[in-house]
Amino acid sequence: MDGELKDVITNVQQMYRADAEKSKLTFKTSSNLGGRFRSDVQIREHEMIIDEPASIGGTDLGPSPVEVILAALGSCQEITYRAYATAMGIELDNVSVILEGDIDFRGFFAVDESVRPGFNKIRARVAIQSNASLTDLEKLRDAVNGHCPVLDILRNPVPVELDVVFNSSK
Amino acid sequence: MDGELKDVITNVQQMYRADAEKSKLTFKTSSNLGGRFRSDVQIREHEMIIDEPASIGGTDLGPSPVEVILAALGSCQEITYRAYATAMGIELDNVSVILEGDIDFRGFFAVDESVRPGFNKIRARVAIQSNASLTDLEKLRDAVNGHCPVLDILRNPVPVELDVVFNSSK
Repeated sequence: MDGELKDVITNVQQMYRADAEKSKLTFKTSSNLGGRFRSDVQIREHEMIIDEPASIGGTDLGPSPVEVILAALGSCQEITYRAYATAMGIELDNVSVILEGDIDFRGFFAVDESVRPGFNKIRARVAIQSNASLTDLEKLRDAVNGHCPVLDILRNPVPVELDVVFNSSK
Repeated sequence: MDGELKDVITNVQQMYRADAEKSKLTFKTSSNLGGRFRSDVQIREHEMIIDEPASIGGTDLGPSPVEVILAALGSCQEITYRAYATAMGIELDNVSVILEGDIDFRGFFAVDESVRPGFNKIRARVAIQSNASLTDLEKLRDAVNGHCPVLDILRNPVPVELDVVFNSSK
């Protein structure tokens, strides 16, 4: 068991119980259309290229936006398993996730306006390696699926405010 | 105007009108918890590291899952602007996006079960550079916001099927 990480989690929980304002965080990213479909993304000190495959006119220098959504879900499941296993004192040797997401591109390409442009369905296979009891692993799974941020973001609506500015000098 | 890209878009639309089955695509990713919170992601030939900041016990070798969600939205907006501007014959010099997403971490840390673990709200500032008329730019904006896959994925629920497997040899 990772005692140091368990202390980090316990300390964060105590801080949030003592002062709820400290729990309210804002994440920021920025990006720019550097090429035809290539988006150059800045996330704190991390840089990332998101692009489209050559088959639809991109330069394939990075994953596409919808693939990045799947990647975020897989990693968020894994990280949430690690955090909750540590907090609950349950042994966890490994977690890996395989994801599939179905899109009907008649939506994006405006061929059928009744078809949604995003994923119709996502399927995840989450593989857990652990010597813990089945009872403990089922408790862990239920705790993870109740608290995984990206799972919540995908399964439930997120209000998105769009402020579109034309030819601002800023 | 990018005539080659316009032809790609027109050809894809004609293919989907002729055979709707061709429009149904499945995207795949896989990932593995390589470190404490570090997730090693494979997306076709693209590799990506998703991690957590040191403040909550990570090694900060990459952006966090929720930051990656914001990045996907920004790039998807930009790519959808490029695609629709080209298809609609509207000049587009540049698009950039700044995103903010608010999370109350009492949700993830199980301090208050009434708080959702994901984003409460996302704010996007989308800056368009173009010499097109305001009327055209407003048409473009409305077309983009009606067809941007990641915007749809965030604003509307996506069914996620989770198959959790304990100690499978596969």
